[in-house]
Amino acid sequence: MTIQLKDLGKAVLETEYAVRGPIVARAQELERQGREIIYCNIGNPQALKQKPLTFLRQMLSLCQYPELMDKCPEQFPPDVIETAKKVLDGTKHGVGAYSESKGVRFIREAVAEFIYERDGIPVDPEAIYLTDGASKGVQTALRILISGTRDGIMIPIPQYPLYSATLTLYEGKQVSYYLDENRDWRLSRAMLDESLQEARRFDVNVKAICVLNPGNPTGAVLDKDNISMIIDFAREHGMAILADEVYQENIYNPGDSFVSFAKVMVERNEKDVSLFSFHSCSKGFLGECGQRGGYMEIRNIPNDVVAQITKLQSISLCSNLTGQVAVYCMVRPPRPGSPSHALYAAERDGILNELKKRAVILAESLNKIPGIECNTVAGAMYAFPRVTLPVNRKDDDYCMALLEEEGICVVPGTGFGQIPGTAHFRATILPPTNKIQAMVEKLEKFHLRFK
Amino acid sequence: MTIQLKDLGKAVLETEYAVRGPIVARAQELERQGREIIYCNIGNPQALKQKPLTFLRQMLSLCQYPELMDKCPEQFPPDVIETAKKVLDGTKHGVGAYSESKGVRFIREAVAEFIYERDGIPVDPEAIYLTDGASKGVQTALRILISGTRDGIMIPIPQYPLYSATLTLYEGKQVSYYLDENRDWRLSRAMLDESLQEARRFDVNVKAICVLNPGNPTGAVLDKDNISMIIDFAREHGMAILADEVYQENIYNPGDSFVSFAKVMVERNEKDVSLFSFHSCSKGFLGECGQRGGYMEIRNIPNDVVAQITKLQSISLCSNLTGQVAVYCMVRPPRPGSPSHALYAAERDGILNELKKRAVILAESLNKIPGIECNTVAGAMYAFPRVTLPVNRKDDDYCMALLEEEGICVVPGTGFGQIPGTAHFRATILPPTNKIQAMVEKLEKFHLRFK
Repeated sequence: MTIQLKDLGKAVLETEYAVRGPIVARAQELERQGREIIYCNIGNPQALKQKPLTFLRQMLSLCQYPELMDKCPEQFPPDVIETAKKVLDGTKHGVGAYSESKGVRFIREAVAEFIYERDGIPVDPEAIYLTDGASKGVQTALRILISGTRDGIMIPIPQYPLYSATLTLYEGKQVSYYLDENRDWRLSRAMLDESLQEARRFDVNVKAICVLNPGNPTGAVLDKDNISMIIDFAREHGMAILADEVYQENIYNPGDSFVSFAKVMVERNEKDVSLFSFHSCSKGFLGECGQRGGYMEIRNIPNDVVAQITKLQSISLCSNLTGQVAVYCMVRPPRPGSPSHALYAAERDGILNELKKRAVILAESLNKIPGIECNTVAGAMYAFPRVTLPVNRKDDDYCMALLEEEGICVVPGTGFGQIPGTAHFRATILPPTNKIQAMVEKLEKFHLRFK
Repeated sequence: MTIQLKDLGKAVLETEYAVRGPIVARAQELERQGREIIYCNIGNPQALKQKPLTFLRQMLSLCQYPELMDKCPEQFPPDVIETAKKVLDGTKHGVGAYSESKGVRFIREAVAEFIYERDGIPVDPEAIYLTDGASKGVQTALRILISGTRDGIMIPIPQYPLYSATLTLYEGKQVSYYLDENRDWRLSRAMLDESLQEARRFDVNVKAICVLNPGNPTGAVLDKDNISMIIDFAREHGMAILADEVYQENIYNPGDSFVSFAKVMVERNEKDVSLFSFHSCSKGFLGECGQRGGYMEIRNIPNDVVAQITKLQSISLCSNLTGQVAVYCMVRPPRPGSPSHALYAAERDGILNELKKRAVILAESLNKIPGIECNTVAGAMYAFPRVTLPVNRKDDDYCMALLEEEGICVVPGTGFGQIPGTAHFRATILPPTNKIQAMVEKLEKFHLRFK
């Protein structure tokens, strides 16, 4: 008798990950049958024609095949060759050997310097873990925090389903706090208190709060006061903070800027709140999702717990070295004046400017459709519009029909969570500008005829 | 109040992973202080000076930076350029985009062809998952199999601690079966029956048996009869099989050859035993540990369970694309007659011949030391000698002292499991041949004075 579905654990069966759920599976099936699909389901820039940054790819090719430095040095700016040599020295054995479980120390030092330069705060390289994308870091933090089925973690609604999926898999309790759609998806102390009270009524031991800044799928950007408020809340209730900061470069409103949790905590001399924060090479203007590079920074965590985190990391030996080098390239880009800087800056600005434009175009054109309302996309890579649906129709059906009829693949709001009775979908702002226009036109026709 | 050790779950705290445990941490500390350390703790060939294969690195550099194909085509054999183009086309969006959760379909098709050519059996590319090294595949299989704390998995003793660590973390029961050191670490039906009876006495629901072939740390190679016996055992008791076949290219005795579980199952028309088998780019003659490339092949698993496996994979989006391309290079090396073949074959044979020599030298020279007994290293990358220790001394102390006094880093037998009262250590055969000699001399002196 082979293994059967009934043999699987409840946690595995109940785990849901809508960003790659049945709608995406159906999209791939249609594509194999020859249909053209616009994939707006996931923040996968290079699948939507974003070009990789030359600097990063030159670095990775040299690290993979260092002989090119001697064989055709004229193909690489001299500073790239020099940097690649430095990184290879730093790895000690190149990209083909396992590194320390935490990742190459030299690269962790570079990450520490990057945070110091960004925030003006001291960082211990031993508090940096290089991870396969941010996802693995988040999973490690949740693994450490959830010690039994009574333990709960606060997550925003709507949220990125990595959090809900991992919580279900680790048999922790999801403690939802709502973001306020009518106030640009803002996060309020009242909502946090309400959510915590509710959890305590059910005897849930709330261990941490997850915050996504900028928000996914909401795009909302937190200011310093918001962050201080969350830190106060966490301290008062003995919680840790998970700060998902992977979209820190993706901020589109001129008035907004990224403020890290680490910076606010250090400035306030906060010692009593444990912090896990996450960054990635997959987003920003690099968009190098396939390299699976990322890091986790930890603060206010006692050494004996740090040792446990390292132990968990070590079971999979280390994150992939190419991803580690990609992290190095993210945190140590060409300096102004160096030979590779001009091209780097032009490519970076080109991508960021395009994203800014698309964020505006997508939200504006969605808002022109009667029955669709979309907040400003202030950050990240998504619009999360609210849709008015005919009575008894759900956003799942809506999104599946949109795929079947128009070849547009978006993710239903249920995958991220929403106030019961409301309906949304998430669409990335990533398709090329001319495609966004065409997509919204198709969407409008579809929306108006959807019954 | 920050997070404290007491807040962590029992499963996390109890998990142990000796291959990167306290002895390795101490070795790194000593190294930072300037000591020269011989790392024999882990199968990390390129950290011990094994050179990467030119073909593979050329492929990876081209996939990272395809412009090189036009900029300096003379640096690459024409078949490598052609293959890199084919792979890039197959990925659709290059190595910077997320792939399907299972991995790039084109690469999974290549893996299916590889297995077909190796074993003469049909393979469905949809039954292949590309994973970040074999470790992640093993963890997924165990996650699927362990549905509650009564569930147990049979693992050999000695074993590779990925299995014990993951079992502890997932709160499954470890059901140990002993390998027979006096018969070259062979696996017998009697041992399996005994272990199962013992587990049932404690009301453990045994879901699967893990087999490492070639064995780690034992080096033992299974023949077809052994494999048939294990399949019969699994069928009779309704168990799945996890076949860790990452050392399939590392077989040193002229009389032995690698036989896969998949082949034996298909030849016997076995439909009632679920199989998860694993392979990796980290071992063999590639030794590309840092790329984190690997795959899992599944058989006799119903579609609804397959969908659950895919869902679990999707939470981390996909394995790293460079690792996926490395898997492609492993399963589709240059064909004889192609321009890159001669160099490829020379590098491959050079590495395998060296490993063969070192396997013999290490075992022979260990056996010359009074109080150390080592079986033939028939396969894999390790010697696992038995050491006679002074009364009341443990192999942990022995290995720590060996590190402190001689700078040699090996892993104590306790990390892999051993019959109570015996002591062992695991050392890789990977150091360069001249270093192995020097290492064993130091070890001998140390061993004779250890009290």
